[in-house]
Amino acid sequence: MPQPKASVAVVGAGDHIGAAIVRRFAAGGYAVFAGRRNGDRLAALEQEVAAAGGTCFGRSLDARREDEVATFLAEADGHAPLEVCVFNVGANVRFPIRDTSERVFRKVWELACYGGFLTGREAARIMVPRGRGSIFFTGATASLRGGAGFAAFASAKFGLRAVAQSMARELGPQNIHVAHLVVDAGVDTPFVRNLRRERTGRDEVAADELMNPASIAETYWQLHGQPRDAWTHELDIRPWAETW
Amino acid sequence: MPQPKASVAVVGAGDHIGAAIVRRFAAGGYAVFAGRRNGDRLAALEQEVAAAGGTCFGRSLDARREDEVATFLAEADGHAPLEVCVFNVGANVRFPIRDTSERVFRKVWELACYGGFLTGREAARIMVPRGRGSIFFTGATASLRGGAGFAAFASAKFGLRAVAQSMARELGPQNIHVAHLVVDAGVDTPFVRNLRRERTGRDEVAADELMNPASIAETYWQLHGQPRDAWTHELDIRPWAETW
Amino acid sequence: MPQPKASVAVVGAGDHIGAAIVRRFAAGGYAVFAGRRNGDRLAALEQEVAAAGGTCFGRSLDARREDEVATFLAEADGHAPLEVCVFNVGANVRFPIRDTSERVFRKVWELACYGGFLTGREAARIMVPRGRGSIFFTGATASLRGGAGFAAFASAKFGLRAVAQSMARELGPQNIHVAHLVVDAGVDTPFVRNLRRERTGRDEVAADELMNPASIAETYWQLHGQPRDAWTHELDIRPWAETW
Amino acid sequence: MPQPKASVAVVGAGDHIGAAIVRRFAAGGYAVFAGRRNGDRLAALEQEVAAAGGTCFGRSLDARREDEVATFLAEADGHAPLEVCVFNVGANVRFPIRDTSERVFRKVWELACYGGFLTGREAARIMVPRGRGSIFFTGATASLRGGAGFAAFASAKFGLRAVAQSMARELGPQNIHVAHLVVDAGVDTPFVRNLRRERTGRDEVAADELMNPASIAETYWQLHGQPRDAWTHELDIRPWAETW
Repeated sequence: MPQPKASVAVVGAGDHIGAAIVRRFAAGGYAVFAGRRNGDRLAALEQEVAAAGGTCFGRSLDARREDEVATFLAEADGHAPLEVCVFNVGANVRFPIRDTSERVFRKVWELACYGGFLTGREAARIMVPRGRGSIFFTGATASLRGGAGFAAFASAKFGLRAVAQSMARELGPQNIHVAHLVVDAGVDTPFVRNLRRERTGRDEVAADELMNPASIAETYWQLHGQPRDAWTHELDIRPWAETW
Repeated sequence: MPQPKASVAVVGAGDHIGAAIVRRFAAGGYAVFAGRRNGDRLAALEQEVAAAGGTCFGRSLDARREDEVATFLAEADGHAPLEVCVFNVGANVRFPIRDTSERVFRKVWELACYGGFLTGREAARIMVPRGRGSIFFTGATASLRGGAGFAAFASAKFGLRAVAQSMARELGPQNIHVAHLVVDAGVDTPFVRNLRRERTGRDEVAADELMNPASIAETYWQLHGQPRDAWTHELDIRPWAETW
Repeated sequence: MPQPKASVAVVGAGDHIGAAIVRRFAAGGYAVFAGRRNGDRLAALEQEVAAAGGTCFGRSLDARREDEVATFLAEADGHAPLEVCVFNVGANVRFPIRDTSERVFRKVWELACYGGFLTGREAARIMVPRGRGSIFFTGATASLRGGAGFAAFASAKFGLRAVAQSMARELGPQNIHVAHLVVDAGVDTPFVRNLRRERTGRDEVAADELMNPASIAETYWQLHGQPRDAWTHELDIRPWAETW
Repeated sequence: MPQPKASVAVVGAGDHIGAAIVRRFAAGGYAVFAGRRNGDRLAALEQEVAAAGGTCFGRSLDARREDEVATFLAEADGHAPLEVCVFNVGANVRFPIRDTSERVFRKVWELACYGGFLTGREAARIMVPRGRGSIFFTGATASLRGGAGFAAFASAKFGLRAVAQSMARELGPQNIHVAHLVVDAGVDTPFVRNLRRERTGRDEVAADELMNPASIAETYWQLHGQPRDAWTHELDIRPWAETW
């Protein structure tokens, strides 16, 4: 495989959607920089991508720290021009409002919203002077409506969507494609199965009823490939069988 | 080119977006049935598609007539199993509320909403028993908010979006992918240039500032290709430079 | 009680919300013209209002007929200047999409959306030249999102909201207050109890859990009293215990 | 005037909307505790309310500090049971995304969102055990959509709306009325005149074209008076002439 001509940065390269995005862009020929809290946990992903002929660099990254985000993106951009930046940090918690501590509310916001602002801004600082690039944010059902017990999480996700919308309006005319993707259900994890059981009373899961991260990642890939005269700025992704 | 294994029906195959969708799915190997009010005006498109090695049948079709819609889709399905159905009829008008005649309000609704219901329902009747298919609806900025002078048009477009949302919730679990695409600006036509000039006061148009129908059509194509565990149900499409 | 100085017209003066609005504005000193399909059924309401010292005229009215709507509002305006017009026709139905007949889809639209357009437009024709008046539309949960089985109803209610939004943008600067009220639950009727049971699995109803029409009507009354520098254009109304 | 039976707390009792809310509830017979950054600036309001026969206590309050918010509400509740709590802190700023400092983004969030969470939660802790009370949040246009230059402000306002929605869903069934009011324009201040001029190109202002804070406050007052079977949770307030 030839030397990648451009780099992609994934902030929040967790085990599910984040890792799938890393794989997809690596398969597409980009050098992908993957960041997550504990970079050691990215070793397997690095090896998997390399085995498939791709390029992935795992890094420890606290998205709440301005300097770390700037360094992470600068390193990617130094390797090859940064063309895509994805913010994919999640922080789903659920507490009754009276039991939502100051610490929890702030931490969820720092992870899921403030980190997204830092990531988006630092990416813009690199991309705008060059007049080229894509910045994508992962949203959730809670980006669109609040719910009992979700004050902290919904507040952070609403806030992230506002960052995306504001950046899209400002940076579109500067040729930067900013989009917000509402992943309106969950990939197949214990947390999601639990939430689903709670809402539906059902326990069994039909084929494809929960999402495969690779299917989600494909949509990020396609978004980046859109010609600039027809960009999508907001979309939702849900599995076919979703009825709750 | 081998015999198409499946068919696509485009209701509202106008000169711009509709024709581009026809071209895209024909290029993808589908037999495409294109319907519009005056089918004679589809001759050039038929020839163009044939010259490119594809299959397109142009038909005269009044989407407001139940029997015509049913016959149109049945013919497509008889040729090869109907896999995709796109409703793309537009009817943009602008009148002050007091000057909006009963006739205009009803006609815009019949074209832009009622025809969409008939098209979606007839497609569902074919697809549901087979447990497979995609039904897509073209929306507009007016699908999301009303505006002075747009009571008739926005009312019809809001109504169409409700049809799409309701069908998506009901038919998703039956493996039918229903989506609504908000084309949030216009392709390069005199009507759009006029509206734009009115809002911005500017007359000149930058490169790619208005949309190329082929770019829009690509998104319909990609939607149909999505795996069912990660379907998009609503998205917007706008050009990069859009600031109004 | 002195002679009313102004009149109010309620299109869709049904047994619940509509009748409550009639009572509220009559109690406020307006001559209220109440229209519903079968005007005979308004006799009791007329008597009740009269016994309370108010003025109510019940009329048979098919809101889908331009001439009937115009005549109804003209009669009200002839009695005393028309100051408030409320459109409150409901038409909730639920059918799977494939079983939604052309007739049902059209009829629900004519009742719940087209009739609202006619009512709003005719009221505007009377009020705009005078530069004064309020036009209110009753919405529902289905005004904001579709659902399985609700293609016809949601489509009509979405469409009505678009009429309200468009009129609000156009007529606000002409001193006409246009508002859309989402009554996001139901008054205590068998239909609502049924829907609720279906969604919650519960049968018992707590105190005040379902809405009293008089409570809803109070909000219409307050809206009309708002000073024009701080008008509300959209609001929701739900009972406290609503969790579905 | 008799001794107030209940208290109201206004967090963010600024010169415009906040002060008007204080006046309205004081006029309604409540003991009103008014908090703002610099409590000294509340002396004139205290005197004005007292001169009108009402009760107002001005306090210095940093809504970003958990302990200060808790103390403020506890003092109000100690004086007379806390029945209404309004969060009205604004923090409108506008910066291009690349020039939005970490400090600005965080500060705007702390003021406009985090402070609202603290206020709402502390009020809930007092009201829920008693099973009674109203908690209202002031929103803005930026609560509903982002815009170029508004990443920080819109993010905070979106986040506040999510807090309100989540609290409304959770606390409604506990008889606490939570509402979010979008003040979709501005009262007559230099900042608003500037923004308006920028968007419309017009400088002159028609009668009532900008909002009188007292008109806005009236809506808060009416919300609190709603019977619990018909509560409004979200509404907008705009002046009649608003066309931008």
